[in-house]
Amino acid sequence: MEIIRSVEEMQAKIKTIKAEQKSLGFVPTMGYLHSGHKSLIDKARIENEFVVVSIFVNPTQFGPNEDMEKYPRNESGDFELCDNAGCDIVFIPTAEDMYRKNYNTFVDVYGLTEGLCGASRPIHFRGVCTVVLKLFNIIKPDKAYFGQKDAQQLGVIKRMVLDLNLDVNIIGCPIVREPDGLAMSSRNTYLSQNERSQALVLSKALKKAQQMLDCGETNVLTLKEEMVKIIDSVPTSIIDYVEFVDNLTLKPLAQVKGEVLIALAVKIGKTRLIDNMVVVK
Amino acid sequence: MEIIRSVEEMQAKIKTIKAEQKSLGFVPTMGYLHSGHKSLIDKARIENEFVVVSIFVNPTQFGPNEDMEKYPRNESGDFELCDNAGCDIVFIPTAEDMYRKNYNTFVDVYGLTEGLCGASRPIHFRGVCTVVLKLFNIIKPDKAYFGQKDAQQLGVIKRMVLDLNLDVNIIGCPIVREPDGLAMSSRNTYLSQNERSQALVLSKALKKAQQMLDCGETNVLTLKEEMVKIIDSVPTSIIDYVEFVDNLTLKPLAQVKGEVLIALAVKIGKTRLIDNMVVVK
Repeated sequence: MEIIRSVEEMQAKIKTIKAEQKSLGFVPTMGYLHSGHKSLIDKARIENEFVVVSIFVNPTQFGPNEDMEKYPRNESGDFELCDNAGCDIVFIPTAEDMYRKNYNTFVDVYGLTEGLCGASRPIHFRGVCTVVLKLFNIIKPDKAYFGQKDAQQLGVIKRMVLDLNLDVNIIGCPIVREPDGLAMSSRNTYLSQNERSQALVLSKALKKAQQMLDCGETNVLTLKEEMVKIIDSVPTSIIDYVEFVDNLTLKPLAQVKGEVLIALAVKIGKTRLIDNMVVVK
Repeated sequence: MEIIRSVEEMQAKIKTIKAEQKSLGFVPTMGYLHSGHKSLIDKARIENEFVVVSIFVNPTQFGPNEDMEKYPRNESGDFELCDNAGCDIVFIPTAEDMYRKNYNTFVDVYGLTEGLCGASRPIHFRGVCTVVLKLFNIIKPDKAYFGQKDAQQLGVIKRMVLDLNLDVNIIGCPIVREPDGLAMSSRNTYLSQNERSQALVLSKALKKAQQMLDCGETNVLTLKEEMVKIIDSVPTSIIDYVEFVDNLTLKPLAQVKGEVLIALAVKIGKTRLIDNMVVVK
């Protein structure tokens, strides 16, 4: 496995891979890799002749009061996971190389980014779209793999790719969970032992919604109420949102009908966690 | 010469050209082609094995009170000029195909777009950047040709290409002028015979600045004053701006030093015309 730290070197490498006409799978990450990331790399490995994983904690997607500085990092651990998963190149550029002097270009996807996480993280998706577009332009992948865990991000990236006529196939991959149901996230490392068990309210709330839906309940207010009860049972929890939205437009719904994304963001202590589920009615 | 009207068909065609590893030159235009455009196509023809010209009056770069609807069109004349210039493909998509249902993605280059034409046309460069990025993604050119006439546009596109790590070489080409000095523009067709002769004040003002610079004058206020006098000598003229800016950052200057863009926008009757000159001191 090769480790490349410069944009220019990466571009030169991609030229040679393209010249060999190899199919190229790409997994963009912010590092501190876990089994969720590994599932993306595994899928990329199966579906492509060449696999690139990027590790970049992207400054433009963090707000001024967010966890950019303390975002967890584990370079050697990440390299080991990538190597074991059969990744060909890890691309790990510096922020200075990605955003050079006089940098001034940003991409916005409107409509899909105002609600859910976008409401409390106003510049987040602009940063995500911009860095993903840059990475696509550098890596030129045939397929790129994103986790369903960041459901809004997945929807926004798909919209951007369609709108900008990008020649890359976006593959959404299922959420990977701990045995007790907690969705895998690099941010889980922030949780104290006590908070770790409290964090189960997110997946429990989703399970409750699933049960009620199975019993025929489709009224969003009723469903939300029960989910909120479960989350509020943990005194340290602060709900950012619990939303039922159309899975394509991300517009809020009053009734569960069609393909519906049930998404929630909850702070457990100081750690903001997200989880979601897609249901079809 | 082939005429392609659908984005999908164009993408399929580009795949075959890329497979043949032919170098690809691209000239994006809004049609109603004149000798200025021809000079771009000629240069593209010399420098590339394959040449694509696009004709697209892009709705997202026109403000609500601008001349989108009455922008001049001459499809058959454009095809003839392209064919004579040895162009391989004219790509002439519809607005519906370029901006499909639920379209919501836009690219902004900040910093360079606030002054000059950006001041009176606030959404113009967002529209330009977005459509140029889309066209680059569809056509995948090695080189793309832009006129120096739209100096701010050229600077903005160069910035976007650098910032987004796009793999395309941006070639700026000199302004082509009528024998009497008027810069070629599709919008010149709006001018009445009387206005056509009045429109010469733009190039005359630039010539005056050149003369004064040759005589050692570098104070921008003094230079501007003389240019404004010339333009104001035509009673129907309304100055939008006369600016001396750094040619890279487009920031206003008090003194002519380094590479300086002298740019002006003037309304002659109802027609807004632009012209410019780059000087090095």
